[in-house]
Amino acid sequence: MNDLLSPSDNMWRLMRELYPICRSITGDGVRKTLAILGRDMPLVHHRFPSGTQCYDWEVPFEWNIDGALLRYEDGTVIANFEHHNLHVLGYSLPVDGWFTLDELRTHLFSLPEQPDIIPYVTSYYRSEWGFCLSHRAKEALKPGRYHARIDSRFSPGELVLGEAFLPGRTEREILISCYICHPSMANDSLSGVVLAAELYRELSKRSHLFSYRFCFLPETIGAIAYLSRFGQRLKKALHAGLVVTCVGDSGRIHYKQTRCGNHLLDRVVANVLRHGKWPHEIRGFRPLGSDERQYCSPGFDMPVGSLMRSVYGEFPEYHTSADNLDFVNASALEESFHVYMEVLRALEGNQTCRTTVPFCEPQMGRRGLYPMVGDKAEKSALIQRYMWILNLSDGNNSFLDIAERMDDGLLAVIEAADNLIRAGLLEEVKEVQHE
Amino acid sequence: MNDLLSPSDNMWRLMRELYPICRSITGDGVRKTLAILGRDMPLVHHRFPSGTQCYDWEVPFEWNIDGALLRYEDGTVIANFEHHNLHVLGYSLPVDGWFTLDELRTHLFSLPEQPDIIPYVTSYYRSEWGFCLSHRAKEALKPGRYHARIDSRFSPGELVLGEAFLPGRTEREILISCYICHPSMANDSLSGVVLAAELYRELSKRSHLFSYRFCFLPETIGAIAYLSRFGQRLKKALHAGLVVTCVGDSGRIHYKQTRCGNHLLDRVVANVLRHGKWPHEIRGFRPLGSDERQYCSPGFDMPVGSLMRSVYGEFPEYHTSADNLDFVNASALEESFHVYMEVLRALEGNQTCRTTVPFCEPQMGRRGLYPMVGDKAEKSALIQRYMWILNLSDGNNSFLDIAERMDDGLLAVIEAADNLIRAGLLEEVKEVQHE
Amino acid sequence: MNDLLSPSDNMWRLMRELYPICRSITGDGVRKTLAILGRDMPLVHHRFPSGTQCYDWEVPFEWNIDGALLRYEDGTVIANFEHHNLHVLGYSLPVDGWFTLDELRTHLFSLPEQPDIIPYVTSYYRSEWGFCLSHRAKEALKPGRYHARIDSRFSPGELVLGEAFLPGRTEREILISCYICHPSMANDSLSGVVLAAELYRELSKRSHLFSYRFCFLPETIGAIAYLSRFGQRLKKALHAGLVVTCVGDSGRIHYKQTRCGNHLLDRVVANVLRHGKWPHEIRGFRPLGSDERQYCSPGFDMPVGSLMRSVYGEFPEYHTSADNLDFVNASALEESFHVYMEVLRALEGNQTCRTTVPFCEPQMGRRGLYPMVGDKAEKSALIQRYMWILNLSDGNNSFLDIAERMDDGLLAVIEAADNLIRAGLLEEVKEVQHE
Repeated sequence: MNDLLSPSDNMWRLMRELYPICRSITGDGVRKTLAILGRDMPLVHHRFPSGTQCYDWEVPFEWNIDGALLRYEDGTVIANFEHHNLHVLGYSLPVDGWFTLDELRTHLFSLPEQPDIIPYVTSYYRSEWGFCLSHRAKEALKPGRYHARIDSRFSPGELVLGEAFLPGRTEREILISCYICHPSMANDSLSGVVLAAELYRELSKRSHLFSYRFCFLPETIGAIAYLSRFGQRLKKALHAGLVVTCVGDSGRIHYKQTRCGNHLLDRVVANVLRHGKWPHEIRGFRPLGSDERQYCSPGFDMPVGSLMRSVYGEFPEYHTSADNLDFVNASALEESFHVYMEVLRALEGNQTCRTTVPFCEPQMGRRGLYPMVGDKAEKSALIQRYMWILNLSDGNNSFLDIAERMDDGLLAVIEAADNLIRAGLLEEVKEVQHE
Repeated sequence: MNDLLSPSDNMWRLMRELYPICRSITGDGVRKTLAILGRDMPLVHHRFPSGTQCYDWEVPFEWNIDGALLRYEDGTVIANFEHHNLHVLGYSLPVDGWFTLDELRTHLFSLPEQPDIIPYVTSYYRSEWGFCLSHRAKEALKPGRYHARIDSRFSPGELVLGEAFLPGRTEREILISCYICHPSMANDSLSGVVLAAELYRELSKRSHLFSYRFCFLPETIGAIAYLSRFGQRLKKALHAGLVVTCVGDSGRIHYKQTRCGNHLLDRVVANVLRHGKWPHEIRGFRPLGSDERQYCSPGFDMPVGSLMRSVYGEFPEYHTSADNLDFVNASALEESFHVYMEVLRALEGNQTCRTTVPFCEPQMGRRGLYPMVGDKAEKSALIQRYMWILNLSDGNNSFLDIAERMDDGLLAVIEAADNLIRAGLLEEVKEVQHE
Repeated sequence: MNDLLSPSDNMWRLMRELYPICRSITGDGVRKTLAILGRDMPLVHHRFPSGTQCYDWEVPFEWNIDGALLRYEDGTVIANFEHHNLHVLGYSLPVDGWFTLDELRTHLFSLPEQPDIIPYVTSYYRSEWGFCLSHRAKEALKPGRYHARIDSRFSPGELVLGEAFLPGRTEREILISCYICHPSMANDSLSGVVLAAELYRELSKRSHLFSYRFCFLPETIGAIAYLSRFGQRLKKALHAGLVVTCVGDSGRIHYKQTRCGNHLLDRVVANVLRHGKWPHEIRGFRPLGSDERQYCSPGFDMPVGSLMRSVYGEFPEYHTSADNLDFVNASALEESFHVYMEVLRALEGNQTCRTTVPFCEPQMGRRGLYPMVGDKAEKSALIQRYMWILNLSDGNNSFLDIAERMDDGLLAVIEAADNLIRAGLLEEVKEVQHE
């Protein structure tokens, strides 16, 4: 990518490149996607051969597809994989034969309530073949014979996933996890992938306290495979984690809390959203959703939440051909990127300090801390911030605790505290706050 | 009783048999009542001779009454014990003499605001004689002389109470306590007695985890006498207890919490009422009321609540001749019985389990756990229940904790968890959860 | 003062005597004020020479003023210290010279939004000279030359503060702190001074559990100086403290909580205000305000709140010539005094007891505890209070805990508990409850 491009340019360009690829949980689509991502970051590939046992799961055979065509007896094309990769049931068995309309019906998937769009359907763990098409097209099918041909192949292969790591000043890690197993889905899946890539790019340019780990995984089985190999290490090092998905549409921000619900991460995100004035909604943890289910399984119970725009499963375009490049936009991606960066900056800047003048208040006047610029309200807000920080920094309250108590933005508190540290009025208790 | 009869038939039949008996805290009425109850359960009688010291109290002389008649000088009957046993002040001294209307007045009790009904008044610990009558009858009394005769007898005797015990698979006990000292009061007192008898009958037919202890006591002095002899043992074994009363009227359900207010019992009852969709109201503990006052005295502080319909003291029929067989009905009794049974089933089924697949989620599909019957909403609810149970069953969360977190019914969670136990995905941490 | 005078008479007389004196943080005004207060209580003076280091602060030179006059070239008097001591900037440098209107402007202080009143402005730690006047007067100034003369003197001297101590039955202390550094400010500062003096007078007439410490200090620097010498001892002995100010206006009561926000004091004040039916508002702690800032600095973190009427900085008369004897009134002072006395009585009476009849309830009837006077509602309230006190007095609940649980007034609970103690049903666990 080009350093002169803005985050939204980068993300949009990558989105357009990744969108057409037909991905699944295994196969060449994943490899192609990782290859593209690998151009911009040193991506380590982890491979799990078909048949590998990963906790309660087994890596399936690799699935690849060359083409698929459904035609009426007169040659009319009903569905063609080359026109849209959603036309084939994900993990469909191969087929090549003639069927009556009645025989065909149980192999056709459509959405009666959204008759103009193609659904995205998969059958990873139950052997089936099928075509997906718009309900309108399905309803128009005439009696007669149809030729169905799906050139898919199952073979012992591998599940492959990519990981990038940015070391920080400490070994405590922040995890950014997204999934790369969906075919042409722009918001669900791809928006998270391009935002994760942009975060890598941005963070690689600056010094940071935490180490950052980026995972590009096939959803569910990929996360499970990853955790079966690296879960214990990740659990030990993890400060906080976010599953990135559905960040490209125009909906307002949603945050899904960690399993514990009151983790530092949950509090930081709530503070950033509230005081950043982003329209948003906070949702409690639920054991359904994306890969946070695996990170938050009871054996791991990691502090992983998910920061989205519209929530998967709740927007009508979800898992359909309507989740396309028209549904997402560069400015929504950019805004989401800024929200992520604010959360990371807040996590990085939160610490616990102790005032160097614990008995009675310090004399602020002679230290030149009173603000010289800004209107009266801004000056007053800054003085209050100073006084709160100094009063509560007894070694027990983090900046987050202080921001929450005074109902102020954590980022503003961090900034004000920096002035107090420079003025010698505040000193760090410890560098990283372990919960 | 007849096994072919429904709970409401049983309860109603017993109610009709017990209603006419003139009971008090001692005397033949109590013995008669215990004899009738003893036909259907092995009732142990505990006897406390008059004069026995029970903590701060002393068992009074036994009181029995053969008749009472108040007549005007012209022979007109004003009040006759044979017409209604409420006509005599409970624990009235005997009397036999002529009185002017003025002399009589301080011995007459009526309700000016409910002029047509007879109040229920007692004077257990202050020596008095008196008649109770409707205010209308009292107002109609003409000047002149009245003959008052009360054939009551005080004699060294005993206080007697009945206890039935159903052993369970553990020695942890659930207490069902009701009072048998009220004369013809259908809702206050008797409805609780017949519901307790029906619970005994129902529980004696099935296997149960807890042992069940049923106490049929004269209120206050009976509970105090019982606790003075068995309180320490009960305290040690008690899992939870309920005082049963006022369960036969048409009002909605009320639950009065235990002294601690947040006991397992309080949470279970709240869950059952909320998710059973019973119209209800939950009240905090108060140190006034029925025998929960004694169980919840600070030296014992037992987890005993009270599950009623209308609350004693709050319905106009309370402690009057209007609390009669017209005020209660069989279907209200039956519904109350079902609420009690749901609470007991929920208490029995609540346990703490641990998932056998703690790392990442189990693969549900291949275990056939996905529901095959039910509409889409029911199927989705069951899958969510499975996922919540599996996610939270880390050995620290009881089914109640899980139900509360997901805002679901504990009974539904217990049922779903049974499937997971059978599928080998869940195992018990310990059989009984001791708070 | 005269024992026959009411609290409001005393306070009002003292207010009128103290109002005209020109006070500052140092100087003769403070000495004069302490001399007047010393007539009615044994006031110990603590002296801090100029230059003394007190934590982060240094005691400034003493400032005294003999007069100040601003005149127009034609002799017209613009501002005269003899007319109002607010006309001079507090801690103004001396000056004697002619100035053009333009030169003068930066030395003139007024309130454009309140054009008829003189502001109260100080410049303790930045060297300046200046006059304060009404905005209307300032706007009317004509071009030309002005003669400004301020006869102020800075000299090595002292900061002096007064302290009175009333020993109680225990060494645990209650602090009453007020400030004496404001010139003619009736509500802000002086109302607190006269109320503190009246509390001393009232408490000196009766036996009390706690020791009471009264501090009359120049604000900020005085409190800091005091704490630098006595802070550790105070912290050790302190049960609770209140900063008294702004108690003479007609606004409703405001209570500013201690730094911890849930201290015994906060709960007691909330209870007294709620159940005393005083219109009021409770505010959380903020590290801005009066001397509670110093007592609540993180090194001390003492349980000190502030009980006011209108809050400093929030009423338009604050820090202006309008905060005068017309703005305060004797009946508001008297009501404030009663609120303070109720809080002190509640603090004194709160204790933790244990029932002497822990198992089952005591038999109240034979102890004559049932109320004989009062209407039905009062009787019922008293019986409930008895039952709650007896039920919750298990050695773990203070009277405050009990009052909060039953949503009753602590003072009423204390009174009822006294009856139970006299009846032998309750005994003290320990005399003073240390938090």
